[in-house]
Amino acid sequence: MGKISGVTWGVATIPPAQRPNLAVSEIVSGSTVAAVFTQNRCPAAPVIVGKKHLALTTPRYLMVNSGNANCATGEHGIQDTIACCTALAQLTDIPAHAVLPLSTGKIGIPLPRTELIAELPVALNNATTNSWDKAAQAIMTTDTHKKIVSMPIQHDDHVLTITGIAKGSGMIRPDMATMLAFIATDAIVPQSLTQSLLQDAVAPSFNAITVDGDTSTNDSCVFIATGQSGIQPPRTIIAEALNQVCNELAQQIMSDGEGITRVITIAVTGGKNHAECRTIAYAVAESPLVKAAFYSTTPEWGRILAAIGKVAPHRFDPTRLQIDIGTTTVFTNGARVDNPVAIESQWAARTPHLHIHLGRGTANATVWGGNLSPEYIRINTQPE
Amino acid sequence: MGKISGVTWGVATIPPAQRPNLAVSEIVSGSTVAAVFTQNRCPAAPVIVGKKHLALTTPRYLMVNSGNANCATGEHGIQDTIACCTALAQLTDIPAHAVLPLSTGKIGIPLPRTELIAELPVALNNATTNSWDKAAQAIMTTDTHKKIVSMPIQHDDHVLTITGIAKGSGMIRPDMATMLAFIATDAIVPQSLTQSLLQDAVAPSFNAITVDGDTSTNDSCVFIATGQSGIQPPRTIIAEALNQVCNELAQQIMSDGEGITRVITIAVTGGKNHAECRTIAYAVAESPLVKAAFYSTTPEWGRILAAIGKVAPHRFDPTRLQIDIGTTTVFTNGARVDNPVAIESQWAARTPHLHIHLGRGTANATVWGGNLSPEYIRINTQPE
Repeated sequence: MGKISGVTWGVATIPPAQRPNLAVSEIVSGSTVAAVFTQNRCPAAPVIVGKKHLALTTPRYLMVNSGNANCATGEHGIQDTIACCTALAQLTDIPAHAVLPLSTGKIGIPLPRTELIAELPVALNNATTNSWDKAAQAIMTTDTHKKIVSMPIQHDDHVLTITGIAKGSGMIRPDMATMLAFIATDAIVPQSLTQSLLQDAVAPSFNAITVDGDTSTNDSCVFIATGQSGIQPPRTIIAEALNQVCNELAQQIMSDGEGITRVITIAVTGGKNHAECRTIAYAVAESPLVKAAFYSTTPEWGRILAAIGKVAPHRFDPTRLQIDIGTTTVFTNGARVDNPVAIESQWAARTPHLHIHLGRGTANATVWGGNLSPEYIRINTQPE
Repeated sequence: MGKISGVTWGVATIPPAQRPNLAVSEIVSGSTVAAVFTQNRCPAAPVIVGKKHLALTTPRYLMVNSGNANCATGEHGIQDTIACCTALAQLTDIPAHAVLPLSTGKIGIPLPRTELIAELPVALNNATTNSWDKAAQAIMTTDTHKKIVSMPIQHDDHVLTITGIAKGSGMIRPDMATMLAFIATDAIVPQSLTQSLLQDAVAPSFNAITVDGDTSTNDSCVFIATGQSGIQPPRTIIAEALNQVCNELAQQIMSDGEGITRVITIAVTGGKNHAECRTIAYAVAESPLVKAAFYSTTPEWGRILAAIGKVAPHRFDPTRLQIDIGTTTVFTNGARVDNPVAIESQWAARTPHLHIHLGRGTANATVWGGNLSPEYIRINTQPE
């Protein structure tokens, strides 16, 4: 599925794991590549090394391991990552800085460097353009299913392809990128455009979801344009396709969010600026009381009001605030609207939709959150 | 317990409740009174009315109901609160603005005004100076036990008394006060001192705890000095006593926090300023992953690092960061310290202590948080 000419994936299993946890991707020479990384101030070793490599050259290989984040591992962790890049570079006859390293998994455990290096030849040997599925599986950690999307890009008489994979289900409140996502197209996209296209696509997708409000130390998202189709569609067509792929992957991450049984859309409109809308949307999405209320079917919308009030700006006027659950207004003119039956059915929807209108301006922001279930605690109190 | 000359409490039951949910306190004329209220931007009707009353005069009565927050009830809610104040004023022959109204409970339900007014004579009739215990029970909502503390104030040869009660177990991240707390002393405290004494005592106690990060719409804390002892101790002695009472009540609220089985102390030191220390302490205290990890006994301290990194300031240097669990350092010089056995015993302590040293300056902040258990979800997915 999702074959992109010029990108191969191969996988291998670093012991003692029982399933593939190493994925290596070769990117054809001449491709353009962009990446965005976590804004976490304690980034993992591969993020630190990867940013340096990207500044030097366009990557020819991605080297991704799951299960070990190589974070909080100090200078030793940096050296481990560099050693793995160097080993892959020697096997493939490229410079070490043409390898983009990525890790996801447990924090604070030394990377099994020797074991990882030993599996690199295995991954290289089984690399094919048909292995996006296998790669999507190899990068999983607590994910319960792989995240993959592929779609055609129509341009004139040509049909190009864009394919993306992602992983992530906990420690999800990405800031600039999700846990890990890799997206490629066979279109020609000038290097000067790739970074802004990716940033524009990431903002309303990966950067607008929250499972638990925790931003990972390893979040990274990579966009590759191999140009192997020989076709260069206009920017708008690529942007549209990239936005769709990012949105679809973000939604797949949400619906696989740890313990999440329902995904809630929180649309905030009528703000003075985007930042205040986003702050309020996240406060609602991350309120444990709101999240717990959406695990039940009792419409405790008062908790939404409390969450808004907690972060609302100075001189916020609650009498201009309106809260809708689905199509039903529950709060307006400073008071509740009594409509319990209509509320209950909308609250209990599989994908409830909250609309919060601030009555202060014309800015808006939309965020997707999940509910809080006992399953979240079960998952996160067991050894990973 | 905790008798204060000049303060009585009486209680009553507003139907259909089965236990007392109304508490009325008479404060002797000549007392000095201070109060702090929630910073939530969607405050409840009694907070709006109470602030106005306080600006006009020193309260002679507190009128507290539990089970109904009278919040999100609009102009009608304001009128309900005023009507109740007026009814109590007529019964006691004082001006209506000498009544300080307080409510706690469910948001968005009209106050049962007629029923409440009907019970006011009952509460007045059973009012005594010996009823702090009864009042502590009447103000409870999801609390599993009453919160009360009383201690002597020693000054020269005199022994005065300070007594406080509080309620609160969910929607607890007070900002300026906890859900509800009432503290009284028979000492003479000049009115000019009461407000600053109360604010100083609330900052490191009620304003440094978090159950779930949600700030209530109704938080209020009232401090009363009746002066009935005829003794005026120096400011430092009153401050010390008030701090102790606020701290003790805050800890009682934490240990009764919804679903909390362990209370975690998060001490952040070495910051450039108090604000950044507090932000980091709260990010750790409120991280669902950290909270879940403290429900188990597996020392997932990497989650603490991720929470710090999420909110750390620009140019934060993780190599200067040190994280201690109890007396064991787990992270320093940018890398983990391998000491799993010592960590596990300290992580599993009944009251774990985290010390996060930022290595940037001399400021500090301490916050108390709780763990996240399936019980929290159970409590918050049932009709209140």
